[in-house]
Amino acid sequence: MLPILDTGVAPCCPPLTERPLTPAEAERTAAMFKALGDPVRLRIFSMIASSAGSEACVCDISDVGVSQPTVSHHLKKLREAGLLTSERRGTWVYYRVAPSVLATLGQTFAAA
Amino acid sequence: MLPILDTGVAPCCPPLTERPLTPAEAERTAAMFKALGDPVRLRIFSMIASSAGSEACVCDISDVGVSQPTVSHHLKKLREAGLLTSERRGTWVYYRVAPSVLATLGQTFAAA
Repeated sequence: MLPILDTGVAPCCPPLTERPLTPAEAERTAAMFKALGDPVRLRIFSMIASSAGSEACVCDISDVGVSQPTVSHHLKKLREAGLLTSERRGTWVYYRVAPSVLATLGQTFAAA
Repeated sequence: MLPILDTGVAPCCPPLTERPLTPAEAERTAAMFKALGDPVRLRIFSMIASSAGSEACVCDISDVGVSQPTVSHHLKKLREAGLLTSERRGTWVYYRVAPSVLATLGQTFAAA
């Protein structure tokens, strides 16, 4: 068992250099890359990932060249892909990048 | 200067946890994730990345559930995204994953 299995993240995404992915593994892993495959969505993700505590509120996200509803749409897509978690606190919803997500994605590119 | 600059790979893709990506960085990085955001394309990429010498010929790629011309189309997309290099040897074109590409992608998920 890898430590990452203890974090609540689905056991996905073996290193791409290890062996050919199975169709099911490829579906799960590709869904995460697809969510990061849009420039605006990737900027929003990096804004959150680089914030203190790896979390941010919709209210913190600006200057990405799209409207607030579009930001919310992108946040929904990132959450659906398992890249962000969300939590309501008072008026605002806060989005967070779990460290395990970064570890999971990083390990897919580990050298053989 | 990072060693990775010596490999001929464009200096792209800072860690997503470091600071918000600039629009230009996000464009470049998202293009690579987008190329990996299709399950069949990702399986083909993992077949090549996990082959001996991280290279394979179109003739080595089968059982991905699509026709040879579709495999070739996916290979072209991966090459255009800078994820594969190609070289003709006799009858066949060989595709290769440069180790620097894996390092570049892996570093985008480095923890802060």
